[in-house]
Amino acid sequence: MTQRFAFHVSATDGRARTGTIQTPRGEIRTPAFMPVGTAATVKAMLPESVRATGADILLGNTYHLMLRPGAERVARLGGLHRFMNWQRPILTDSGGFQVMSLSGLRKLTEEGVTFASHVDGSRHFLSPETSMQIQRLLGSDIVMAFDECPALPATDAEVAASMRMSMRWAQRSRDAFGDRPGHALFGIMQGGVTRDLRQESAEALRGIGFDGYAIGGLAVGEGQEAMFGVLDYAPGFLPEDKPRYLMGVGKPDDIVGAVVRGVDMMDCVLPSRSGRTGQAWTRRGQVNIKNARHADDPRPLDADCTCPACTGYSRAYLHHVFRSGEMISGMLLTWHNLHYFQELMAGLRAAIAAGSLDAFVADFEAKRAQGDIDPL
Amino acid sequence: MTQRFAFHVSATDGRARTGTIQTPRGEIRTPAFMPVGTAATVKAMLPESVRATGADILLGNTYHLMLRPGAERVARLGGLHRFMNWQRPILTDSGGFQVMSLSGLRKLTEEGVTFASHVDGSRHFLSPETSMQIQRLLGSDIVMAFDECPALPATDAEVAASMRMSMRWAQRSRDAFGDRPGHALFGIMQGGVTRDLRQESAEALRGIGFDGYAIGGLAVGEGQEAMFGVLDYAPGFLPEDKPRYLMGVGKPDDIVGAVVRGVDMMDCVLPSRSGRTGQAWTRRGQVNIKNARHADDPRPLDADCTCPACTGYSRAYLHHVFRSGEMISGMLLTWHNLHYFQELMAGLRAAIAAGSLDAFVADFEAKRAQGDIDPL
Repeated sequence: MTQRFAFHVSATDGRARTGTIQTPRGEIRTPAFMPVGTAATVKAMLPESVRATGADILLGNTYHLMLRPGAERVARLGGLHRFMNWQRPILTDSGGFQVMSLSGLRKLTEEGVTFASHVDGSRHFLSPETSMQIQRLLGSDIVMAFDECPALPATDAEVAASMRMSMRWAQRSRDAFGDRPGHALFGIMQGGVTRDLRQESAEALRGIGFDGYAIGGLAVGEGQEAMFGVLDYAPGFLPEDKPRYLMGVGKPDDIVGAVVRGVDMMDCVLPSRSGRTGQAWTRRGQVNIKNARHADDPRPLDADCTCPACTGYSRAYLHHVFRSGEMISGMLLTWHNLHYFQELMAGLRAAIAAGSLDAFVADFEAKRAQGDIDPL
Repeated sequence: MTQRFAFHVSATDGRARTGTIQTPRGEIRTPAFMPVGTAATVKAMLPESVRATGADILLGNTYHLMLRPGAERVARLGGLHRFMNWQRPILTDSGGFQVMSLSGLRKLTEEGVTFASHVDGSRHFLSPETSMQIQRLLGSDIVMAFDECPALPATDAEVAASMRMSMRWAQRSRDAFGDRPGHALFGIMQGGVTRDLRQESAEALRGIGFDGYAIGGLAVGEGQEAMFGVLDYAPGFLPEDKPRYLMGVGKPDDIVGAVVRGVDMMDCVLPSRSGRTGQAWTRRGQVNIKNARHADDPRPLDADCTCPACTGYSRAYLHHVFRSGEMISGMLLTWHNLHYFQELMAGLRAAIAAGSLDAFVADFEAKRAQGDIDPL
């Protein structure tokens, strides 16, 4: 296992790339989907089960962890990997996005953000410097620069002003991060859906220099068409030899569209959150397991899926345990969803390596167009 | 694997016995603790994890399953084993006890009980004949006779009248069960805490003839001393060559006291229910993981335990995920509790086989007397 952080592209197909990120805690196969372990757990899953789905890396949320159990406590307990029993790579976000979306009573200045905890109302301060310190205490392998993402709708002037502050914060993040061999710092491009602002942001980040580059400020309500519009050009503003991470994406078709456009990494709560609300994702689209049509259906969710939910249980069982409010419902559906998302990533990687991404995407779309299996 | 139901005692130590129950679906090592899978799931566990704790058999609740998803539906879907993905033996209760404790609007006659579902208020009827039919539809390996357990407090006359009706119901259960090779029917002794009534009940059951005999009507609020008082004589009223099943028991010290008194099988929701409310059971007693003293404790729940919760996580983590309302809290603590209960049963079996049960019990009590580990 290497002690250095490094990224290698092994094959390309159009703008899509496949490769590996080397870290001291293990290899990340790209394009990679990162399950979200907000509060030091991927909800409804044991970490060995998350690994069994094929995940190489998890995302942890700085905002949640700094509030509960607290970054200093995690550090005293040996760091986040040991705390949550996940020895492979962890990426932590900077806390910036979630402060704006989850906390109360915020005050934003050039220095940083003062906010009230959604857990107990206590006052906290996040800045590039404190975010770097917290992510260091957590022990994350991939640290995200502290940024700000303006709430939509926003004028071009607001988006530009916010992006420029984020770029100043990116420089402060870089300075505060220092030199940490084996750990990586990623900058975050902002600029909304405006090409010039995206380009300006990318140039600012490249000037500072990062180990990887995230595309932030998308998947925040702008819609898939607008998102793909940005992804048609934004990855091209970033260095070829560094990973590109699209934050907070997404649905299976968002993922495919992003990979086709040159994205290497993604994260989303969707597979786990959907699993807990009775929503399953399969190659033939979305299935709402609480629908009465499943009550007597002896067939698996997806006959071609090898996950525990599909190999061990009928739709009738999954329907029954969801309706009965049983925890196994969230456990099995989350497992299935994460399995499907990872299988999709593996398929994308193999197709890029084989130079057959167009055929893979056509097959992906054809299966989705079939819709769920016929009623009994 | 045998196609017949059979019980063999391989060793005794005082009144305690160890042996095996053979069934077409596998062997049950006795004394056995049966985790409860009320609604076709042991809450917060996958069935392969339940098996990994050492469970040979599960209990399913006829009352819950007949209401949701319905016994006919389970039968159409291939039976309860296939439905819930547990291929080993299942014992189902008769529904009698839970109708009285959970349902609404009951009417009890010699014929049976009419009641309203706690799920949707719909009207249902349970009798010895319908209970046998439902348990057959579910496909359970060990079927319980339909009985009635009077609510406490009750006069001796009320307990006697109820017991005698249960004995008439036992005969009707036997008649309705018929001849089902490989499946067993257990009678249930009633009679409260009155020795003469317990003896009368046992004689009635022996006269009918069953594959096993349960001791019912205990662990319903009479207290451990009164329960042990009955267990000092009641198992002796039952045939030596058939399994004796104490229903609804219990805490670890209840289990040890029951095994010492000649009980072969038990069931209880305690390990799984406790796990979901932050209560852990260890060889040193009960631990309330939500207590603030665990927040910074890097030690496992029980350093000598080999379950996933104890080998992978600190008390601090278990405390954090409980306080954060994360599902992994119930998943890990339930697993630990079931593991501990099964380890206790394995220890009891080994001690009986070795003729060292007294020493085992002394050690069990000494460890409990130590109490939980010292605060940090």
